Amino acid sequence: MARFLKNREQVKGRSPGSLIFVGTQKVDKVNIRLIDYDDHHLIDQELLDINDAAPYKTTEAVTWININGLHDEQSIGDAGRVFDLHPLVTEDILNTGQRPKIDDYDSYIFIVLKMIRFDRQTQMIVNEQLSIVLADTFVLTFQEQPGDVFEPVRERIRRHKSRIRVSGTDYLAFTLMDTVVENYISVIEHLGEKIEDLEEDILSGHDTAVMEKIHLFKREINYLRKSIRPAKEAVFQMAKLESSLIHDKTLPFLKDLEDLITHATEAIDTYRDLLTDQLNIYNSVVANKMNDIMKVLTIFAAIFIPLTFIAGIYGTNFEYLPELRYKYSYFIFWGVLIAIAGASLYYFKKKRWF
Amino acid sequence: MARFLKNREQVKGRSPGSLIFVGTQKVDKVNIRLIDYDDHHLIDQELLDINDAAPYKTTEAVTWININGLHDEQSIGDAGRVFDLHPLVTEDILNTGQRPKIDDYDSYIFIVLKMIRFDRQTQMIVNEQLSIVLADTFVLTFQEQPGDVFEPVRERIRRHKSRIRVSGTDYLAFTLMDTVVENYISVIEHLGEKIEDLEEDILSGHDTAVMEKIHLFKREINYLRKSIRPAKEAVFQMAKLESSLIHDKTLPFLKDLEDLITHATEAIDTYRDLLTDQLNIYNSVVANKMNDIMKVLTIFAAIFIPLTFIAGIYGTNFEYLPELRYKYSYFIFWGVLIAIAGASLYYFKKKRWF
Amino acid sequence: MARFLKNREQVKGRSPGSLIFVGTQKVDKVNIRLIDYDDHHLIDQELLDINDAAPYKTTEAVTWININGLHDEQSIGDAGRVFDLHPLVTEDILNTGQRPKIDDYDSYIFIVLKMIRFDRQTQMIVNEQLSIVLADTFVLTFQEQPGDVFEPVRERIRRHKSRIRVSGTDYLAFTLMDTVVENYISVIEHLGEKIEDLEEDILSGHDTAVMEKIHLFKREINYLRKSIRPAKEAVFQMAKLESSLIHDKTLPFLKDLEDLITHATEAIDTYRDLLTDQLNIYNSVVANKMNDIMKVLTIFAAIFIPLTFIAGIYGTNFEYLPELRYKYSYFIFWGVLIAIAGASLYYFKKKRWF
Amino acid sequence: MARFLKNREQVKGRSPGSLIFVGTQKVDKVNIRLIDYDDHHLIDQELLDINDAAPYKTTEAVTWININGLHDEQSIGDAGRVFDLHPLVTEDILNTGQRPKIDDYDSYIFIVLKMIRFDRQTQMIVNEQLSIVLADTFVLTFQEQPGDVFEPVRERIRRHKSRIRVSGTDYLAFTLMDTVVENYISVIEHLGEKIEDLEEDILSGHDTAVMEKIHLFKREINYLRKSIRPAKEAVFQMAKLESSLIHDKTLPFLKDLEDLITHATEAIDTYRDLLTDQLNIYNSVVANKMNDIMKVLTIFAAIFIPLTFIAGIYGTNFEYLPELRYKYSYFIFWGVLIAIAGASLYYFKKKRWF
Amino acid sequence: MARFLKNREQVKGRSPGSLIFVGTQKVDKVNIRLIDYDDHHLIDQELLDINDAAPYKTTEAVTWININGLHDEQSIGDAGRVFDLHPLVTEDILNTGQRPKIDDYDSYIFIVLKMIRFDRQTQMIVNEQLSIVLADTFVLTFQEQPGDVFEPVRERIRRHKSRIRVSGTDYLAFTLMDTVVENYISVIEHLGEKIEDLEEDILSGHDTAVMEKIHLFKREINYLRKSIRPAKEAVFQMAKLESSLIHDKTLPFLKDLEDLITHATEAIDTYRDLLTDQLNIYNSVVANKMNDIMKVLTIFAAIFIPLTFIAGIYGTNFEYLPELRYKYSYFIFWGVLIAIAGASLYYFKKKRWF
Repeated sequence: MARFLKNREQVKGRSPGSLIFVGTQKVDKVNIRLIDYDDHHLIDQELLDINDAAPYKTTEAVTWININGLHDEQSIGDAGRVFDLHPLVTEDILNTGQRPKIDDYDSYIFIVLKMIRFDRQTQMIVNEQLSIVLADTFVLTFQEQPGDVFEPVRERIRRHKSRIRVSGTDYLAFTLMDTVVENYISVIEHLGEKIEDLEEDILSGHDTAVMEKIHLFKREINYLRKSIRPAKEAVFQMAKLESSLIHDKTLPFLKDLEDLITHATEAIDTYRDLLTDQLNIYNSVVANKMNDIMKVLTIFAAIFIPLTFIAGIYGTNFEYLPELRYKYSYFIFWGVLIAIAGASLYYFKKKRWF
Repeated sequence: MARFLKNREQVKGRSPGSLIFVGTQKVDKVNIRLIDYDDHHLIDQELLDINDAAPYKTTEAVTWININGLHDEQSIGDAGRVFDLHPLVTEDILNTGQRPKIDDYDSYIFIVLKMIRFDRQTQMIVNEQLSIVLADTFVLTFQEQPGDVFEPVRERIRRHKSRIRVSGTDYLAFTLMDTVVENYISVIEHLGEKIEDLEEDILSGHDTAVMEKIHLFKREINYLRKSIRPAKEAVFQMAKLESSLIHDKTLPFLKDLEDLITHATEAIDTYRDLLTDQLNIYNSVVANKMNDIMKVLTIFAAIFIPLTFIAGIYGTNFEYLPELRYKYSYFIFWGVLIAIAGASLYYFKKKRWF
Repeated sequence: MARFLKNREQVKGRSPGSLIFVGTQKVDKVNIRLIDYDDHHLIDQELLDINDAAPYKTTEAVTWININGLHDEQSIGDAGRVFDLHPLVTEDILNTGQRPKIDDYDSYIFIVLKMIRFDRQTQMIVNEQLSIVLADTFVLTFQEQPGDVFEPVRERIRRHKSRIRVSGTDYLAFTLMDTVVENYISVIEHLGEKIEDLEEDILSGHDTAVMEKIHLFKREINYLRKSIRPAKEAVFQMAKLESSLIHDKTLPFLKDLEDLITHATEAIDTYRDLLTDQLNIYNSVVANKMNDIMKVLTIFAAIFIPLTFIAGIYGTNFEYLPELRYKYSYFIFWGVLIAIAGASLYYFKKKRWF
Repeated sequence: MARFLKNREQVKGRSPGSLIFVGTQKVDKVNIRLIDYDDHHLIDQELLDINDAAPYKTTEAVTWININGLHDEQSIGDAGRVFDLHPLVTEDILNTGQRPKIDDYDSYIFIVLKMIRFDRQTQMIVNEQLSIVLADTFVLTFQEQPGDVFEPVRERIRRHKSRIRVSGTDYLAFTLMDTVVENYISVIEHLGEKIEDLEEDILSGHDTAVMEKIHLFKREINYLRKSIRPAKEAVFQMAKLESSLIHDKTLPFLKDLEDLITHATEAIDTYRDLLTDQLNIYNSVVANKMNDIMKVLTIFAAIFIPLTFIAGIYGTNFEYLPELRYKYSYFIFWGVLIAIAGASLYYFKKKRWF
Repeated sequence: MARFLKNREQVKGRSPGSLIFVGTQKVDKVNIRLIDYDDHHLIDQELLDINDAAPYKTTEAVTWININGLHDEQSIGDAGRVFDLHPLVTEDILNTGQRPKIDDYDSYIFIVLKMIRFDRQTQMIVNEQLSIVLADTFVLTFQEQPGDVFEPVRERIRRHKSRIRVSGTDYLAFTLMDTVVENYISVIEHLGEKIEDLEEDILSGHDTAVMEKIHLFKREINYLRKSIRPAKEAVFQMAKLESSLIHDKTLPFLKDLEDLITHATEAIDTYRDLLTDQLNIYNSVVANKMNDIMKVLTIFAAIFIPLTFIAGIYGTNFEYLPELRYKYSYFIFWGVLIAIAGASLYYFKKKRWF
């Protein structure tokens, strides 16, 4: 399966707005969790049916409904109906090959992001689609599988008097997005450390796996980039939406989020450049090593080949070969050999070959 | 024939707006199919003459006329007259070397796209020009050859109560464009899988055809890019046209199409970068292999050339060569040879050459 | 002479607006041709003196005056006076090193383009400066040398009832520019075919002239690009001029021209990328061939050098060399040699060196 | 620790606006210095507690409070309260991994920059975060560690009648930013000289450490770039803020600062390009040296291998080998050897191999 | 001294607006020349003191004061006072490391450019800072050293009835800038010819200095680019200033200047690309030559090493070596050698190695 384009094939030819789950089923049962709060009260419970959430929809308090597991098209369809979502929105929620984006549907804002984390087991970067629907009185979030990434947010909600308890849905949505972006940063940092650790291996030139690692990291970086760059666009668009759903006092937080995600994309670009530089350096190291190998060969060959030739001369069986008869010939012969070898070595030394 | 510029030569010097078919005739007979529908009725029939379509032109119902085969300049000319098309439009329909674009002629919108598919037989990506004329009450489509790519759209039209049955011409045009873009995605995905499959061959470095494949895929990717990037421009322009032909409720669908085609162009760019990286990696692999080859050569040469020289010494025929007389000379001689070979091996081992 | 900057040296330090011909004289005599037409009449004649054109200047009919040969500064100066041109315009006409551009002087529009064609004799791409002055009732064109490139346009004018006969000066100017751009396309196509033909030579790696050809084509492509890109800018600017000289019904034709020249610049960029890819592939081919050469050398050396050494052992003249005495020594010796050679071959085979 | 992303991990999951010091503690004690001046008076003193600065907050005179050391979250929190700073501002001050930026909070402007200097001891470029809060009557600056970089500014303030004494807080903030940018320039200049000094080593091709140096300098340059480019954005944004805090007469100074920082970023880009060129040249030098090495090897081998072969012929022990018997054989043999060697040398000379 | 950043160190920590000369003193004495003209009169004289220019300041006639030599901070300070220049302007005039720019100070426009020329002696491109102050009735120019580059302008002023005599200060400033840009063109042309001359050396691959030349030219081109690109920005800004100092009839001339400097920057980019291509081609040439060298080595080795081995066999001293006894052994032996050599040659020929 091509990694950069997920499962589009499955929906080809269907009508836009059809509810078809596109992706791999990652969880057994759909899991719905409702948190309803304002500065006075807090309700935190699991729901069995999304229809049970209907009464919370129009209350003044902030209602956050998180749905884990997207394979149950029925539930997502129900959620769409209960919360009056456009068919394209429910389609996009189900289609996990969606590009990060933000769409303003007047009565609500629809945000798609990629949640990225490093899987310690496979040593791979995995991502998961997170859809957020931000309305006046509720926030819906849709994840592919349960995870404890939003647990710190819930902790903050549980704390009485926290800023989140006294703010609206927009601040909740910001907090969730902020959490996602903080995750980007730590994945990049993790990958970045590995990339920087390559340096030493590269300059020694011993490890031939270096090249494969560079290539692997480059792919990972490109993979991250593909998710984070459109997310950056979405974040910048959000601050410019002029939607009544986003209050003025949330704007500085969005601006801070812009800085954070810009930071992330710049770090990605920096590591991309670093990897390109590393490959160049590695190639230079390899070329240099080749020179060294050839020098060894050439020195050996240039010294011994002439010597062997001279020995060969006196190994001929000519009947009249005067030198063979003289008593000191053998020693003169050795002298000549040593002189030639010395001259060669001096020549290579002068050329700074060793 | 240069693949990137089609047949322009044929029209050089003709007046713009002249009706000349530019391309290769791909179908024997022009084939005209009319579908006329609203939520109450549905007419689906083949027409023998485009002039028979005239009565449907002004009815309220949505009329979709699809014409396969462009070599019959007469028919296209008739179509132009029946539906009041600008001479430049009919010229562009006939000229299959057209760049994807969108032109707003007030009473209708003219869209040119490339329909792209992977030909299983030739293992090549082929494209075909698709021209769409979107007017208030009718949609004209012109294809180079018949294909069943729009069959799912017809299926949807046949279904009573489908969204397409209750929507206008703009939604029909969107659906056709969406189908085309979905096709781009699956061609890119198909090519992408092949590109990703290259990885293994590259790192092994055995297959010398890798380079040719990289080169071939790069050309295919560039070829796709050349068709899809202007199509992306056209899609984005369409959403910004502020034409009365495009209704507000179709806009979210166009926005969705924008996301889809952005997705496609980003995937193309990702694969382009990947191919460039792959070529770099391949070059590094080749350089590394060269190092390995040279190491083998150098080790052999550095060990055996001095040994041969020493054997050569004792192969000389000097009359006074004292070592030859001693009884154990031969065994000492072997000892010296083995010591030299061992020292060389130790040296190369220490340099981590093997 | 630097090819990318023509003859600027000649005008250094002169006052802007001075009439100095900058370039190489390419024609003996200045040649002036006047065509005056509307839908009723057509005058087509050679003029001896540009001053004879003065009466046609203000008539309602479209007057097209084409001047071949720019070395006669007097004539151009006269033309400037007769048609009230700004001194900078006449200077630019004479300076053949001008960058393609469009300038709006309210009462007329001044357009500079490069006419590009492939010279079959020198196998080089040559270009020539074409200046167009578009006014309300006349169009002036200035070429460096006579050519039949505009003959098809004259043909169309001669045809009664052709669109050109019933249109204004703006349509004439468009037609001339369209002709020039069509010429770009065919030069690019011609060069493109040559570039695509290189492929085969590159992958075989035999032809060492490939590199020179790649380099040559790259220069040609860059040369084209230098002329066509500013021409594209000029075309796009023209459609946006909001000049009263350009009528609304000519706008679709200008838009068509924009598409055509965008097509041309995209084709140039595609071929540039292709050439870069080709050079990369060629370098890989060369590196691969080097590997093959070194493998042959290493296989020969690694097999025969040890064998020669062993032969050398038994060529020594030690008095006590026991093996020499045994009857089957020689055959055992051959056996050992063959075993060593076989082992080496097996080793290289296993490493897939051949 | 990844160098490009500092310590974000420490704050993950905390609420935005929480006061947590992110970084390494670089100084023992927080150090607070207050300078309060107008053209008549000057107060310059150390404060023990930031709360002591409260009375100066609203006076007409310019108050500059510089705080060194950020690890004491309590002090920074107090400063935030005393001067009414938004929680995000105090958070950003404490988080030393902040991206350079400028935020307008109406009643004050918050500026984050990186102070860059070359550490003579470690021979590394180090940076430190500088936060500036510019309000109507006061300027706050927060540094990670004490340094004398702002001493020249204090000198100027001490001088009676200096421009700074008669200007407002905006001019003071400009002066501080100007000092920081001047520091960028001198760090770039320092690094630039080292880069330019590499040239000679590269062209000689002797020093194998060249490659490592190029790589190191490239990282340093990228590191600088990562700090200075967003600083440039911030400076350009500042001039466009239309804040009442920035007076018209300060604008020419800001424009000058824009030029200076543009100068800095251009110098960085120039050195980046230079390093890329240097690596390319170095690779060419290495390839050329390889050619030289191979030429030596080939000349030796091509001359002596045939000679050794001929000597080997006459070292065979065939019983009937006629040449061995002739008296002058040995001398003819030498003649042939010399002739062959001469011919080889002549051939290589003609090919210009030496 | 880093070449790309001049002498900033000298002003670090000083107050902006301080008058400090930054650069190398290039002339002994400051030299002041005043030209005052309108269409009726012309005054052309040397001044000893800039204060003597004060009376001309407000007359209707155009006054051009050229000051050569910037080391005399006193004079420049006086000039600043006499002509009411902002302290930043005089600072920038003295600081010869200034980036080309244009600043509008309402009552005057301040322009900084680099005057570039090729020094025949050092064969280096040298540049010098030119500052222009354009006011309603006067133009001030400041050069680092005297040069006759503006002599042609003076010539034109001396000519009665020249356009310059009847135009205002804006036309004079344009003329000076035009002269500077014409100089850019001729320096680029000069360098370009040298670059194009490299081609032949590159394709022969003999001259190893080619690489150093490419590198040198690349630096020169980058150096030019660094001066000319900001100059281009300045020229384009000037035409958009909407300052009352620039009259409508000067605008076409400024537009012409825009074309000229765009021409210059495009030529620089073209040569940059050409140099990159040349280095690539050179590397290919070197790799190809390596292949040739290795082929020679391999052919020699592959032919003679096996032959030597065979000769070695018959040089062994085995007592029972049957072949040695046969009468025709020696001739058969030669036959085998020749057959093997011939087969090898045939093999290499078939592989098209020579």
